[in-house]
Amino acid sequence: MLNFEFHNPTRIVFGKDRFRELNRLIPADATVLLCYGGGSVKRFGTLDKVRQALGERNVLEFGGIEANPRYATLMRAVEVVRREQIDFLLAVGGGSVMDGTKFIALAAEYAGNPEDILFGKAKPAQLASAVPLGTVVTLPATGSEMNSGGVISHGDGKFVFFSPHVFPRFSILDPTLTFTLPPTQVANGVVDAFIHTVEQYVTLPAEGRFQDRTAEGILRTLIEIGPVTVADPKDYDARANLMWCATNALNGLIGAGVPQDWTTHMIGHELTALFGIDHAKTLAIVQPAVWTVRREQKRAKLLQYAERVWDLGAGDEDSRVDTAIARTRAFFESLGVATRLSAYGVSREQIDTVVRNLEAHGMVALGEKREVTPEVSRRILEEAW
Amino acid sequence: MLNFEFHNPTRIVFGKDRFRELNRLIPADATVLLCYGGGSVKRFGTLDKVRQALGERNVLEFGGIEANPRYATLMRAVEVVRREQIDFLLAVGGGSVMDGTKFIALAAEYAGNPEDILFGKAKPAQLASAVPLGTVVTLPATGSEMNSGGVISHGDGKFVFFSPHVFPRFSILDPTLTFTLPPTQVANGVVDAFIHTVEQYVTLPAEGRFQDRTAEGILRTLIEIGPVTVADPKDYDARANLMWCATNALNGLIGAGVPQDWTTHMIGHELTALFGIDHAKTLAIVQPAVWTVRREQKRAKLLQYAERVWDLGAGDEDSRVDTAIARTRAFFESLGVATRLSAYGVSREQIDTVVRNLEAHGMVALGEKREVTPEVSRRILEEAW
Repeated sequence: MLNFEFHNPTRIVFGKDRFRELNRLIPADATVLLCYGGGSVKRFGTLDKVRQALGERNVLEFGGIEANPRYATLMRAVEVVRREQIDFLLAVGGGSVMDGTKFIALAAEYAGNPEDILFGKAKPAQLASAVPLGTVVTLPATGSEMNSGGVISHGDGKFVFFSPHVFPRFSILDPTLTFTLPPTQVANGVVDAFIHTVEQYVTLPAEGRFQDRTAEGILRTLIEIGPVTVADPKDYDARANLMWCATNALNGLIGAGVPQDWTTHMIGHELTALFGIDHAKTLAIVQPAVWTVRREQKRAKLLQYAERVWDLGAGDEDSRVDTAIARTRAFFESLGVATRLSAYGVSREQIDTVVRNLEAHGMVALGEKREVTPEVSRRILEEAW
Repeated sequence: MLNFEFHNPTRIVFGKDRFRELNRLIPADATVLLCYGGGSVKRFGTLDKVRQALGERNVLEFGGIEANPRYATLMRAVEVVRREQIDFLLAVGGGSVMDGTKFIALAAEYAGNPEDILFGKAKPAQLASAVPLGTVVTLPATGSEMNSGGVISHGDGKFVFFSPHVFPRFSILDPTLTFTLPPTQVANGVVDAFIHTVEQYVTLPAEGRFQDRTAEGILRTLIEIGPVTVADPKDYDARANLMWCATNALNGLIGAGVPQDWTTHMIGHELTALFGIDHAKTLAIVQPAVWTVRREQKRAKLLQYAERVWDLGAGDEDSRVDTAIARTRAFFESLGVATRLSAYGVSREQIDTVVRNLEAHGMVALGEKREVTPEVSRRILEEAW
């Protein structure tokens, strides 16, 4: 097992109607900025319920945080936070709203140019604080509700940032708030959680037995409940299991002390930025291709994945790996998520542009051993096409 | 899935020689009380290394915290904390030292009679703070390094307390610090972690799929590495996996949102208090008997346990349950831990005394549905004899 540090102070409040407890979770004298996305939290009454639970507090709203939230949008919220002396941010939404709110929290207290935070130019001493924040999760997928990172769009790229100061103080996970989601978003959530898990698991053997077993448990659970929860939005237990798996897939637990490989996310980010393909759908496109191209490097863990997740313990090794990759692809497709780049209208020629952007964004040595050069990324994209 | 709240702010610093990082983890101006047990941390040099890592800080020592730490012992430390204006407690040891240090932390800031904390008479408002504490773990077993509870001996009983204020600020888990443990203590650690896990898992079905899979992962890992780590104390990876499993077995993760049944612990506490049997050994005695006596109530989860932990998916149900119980018993015995009350010199007649003490301590409705009356406990003890 590799050395690690694990610290996750987010309080999870899980269950039906738990947003009623917002009153105890946010300081009574706080001026709150409610951050949200499009109209669905308004349309389905979630925002009203949340406002009611906040009682007599001074509450302002900032709506319009888009999917793949943009720097310029968020900077308008930063102005509001500074001008109105906001002292608590409450994100109501999915990963984009939560990530965006984390960025607002950090940027509002950053003395320099907040672009620094995205471009890795901010020094730790400059990132010594953030406006405290909490979340009410309406879309189980990204795990943002219980981690310290976010992804923000700027120009033609997507940029990742981390700070221990943006761990949510609390996150309310109420499966019933997700009942109104369209099936395609739920399918995306299943895929996102699945890929987060394999990126911390299908790497190199490292004797992280608890981590591996827990990752395998998340994957098996997603395989069991994925189709159920896409088909029947009101199956509480299926949705609850999706929600809790998505959180645990990216709260640091399964990645502590083991190698990680975020190739799929980094290539996927370019596909979203260039072609507007949903984040999770880009992952479903790229992941099977990463495994196909890098099967030798990942052989031991692919065999473990085949055996423990898909019960493929017999037969020759190569066919086990092939079948595991094919089953994974079929699982995504069964949720209605296409797994080929060509299915999203991207031409083979456009792969050049993707590779160029990876290079422009410094994504030239990806993978658990930094072996994924632009040339390897090209092979992955060609395989994924 | 049941509703739950999960919050665990302890920072885990895991790996070889991590105690060197104590300097960054404890405030520079703190007056520290080092709390420890018998001579082993002195004999093997751990205490010296820790003192060195603390640098120029004002450091006092409180040694002699015994196994199953006693109220009277700990109250002597409370006096030191108050007199010397200690502002950080550092526990160096196993579960007893960590539990004892948590009690010291809470009692030192408690205005009334600290016995209230053990007897459930302290009101939450009276338990609003504790002296901050950290731990350096030398014995993987109880999970105390990452939870908010402790067990203290007082008179003829063992008493459990909880407070969110006694979560360690950090815990240093260095597998190499455990290399000098005697095999019997390592075996006890494996059993303790195993039982913690099944008490949150072999209960009633509750659609906690992530929790069940994670529990099963801990159990399978303990079965894999238990004999290895007892036989070869210097196998770093085996010891690391034991250590991280023991922590995760009782940090709230696998018990969140599912029923729990602490019957085995409650009966076990009486056996330790009356007969001085090691805590873990009492658990190995009681658990198989709990399952035998309550097999109908626990049937669904026992079958799941049989299938997913012991690969017993075929044959008639009753024989699967029988075999799973027998395998569990054989696993404990293979570690050198006897699983019969009679093996520890307790007579059948003494069961009366155990049942009387359970009643005296209010342990009259144990189990996930509070169905374990003193009469059921008697049957369990007779089965365990």
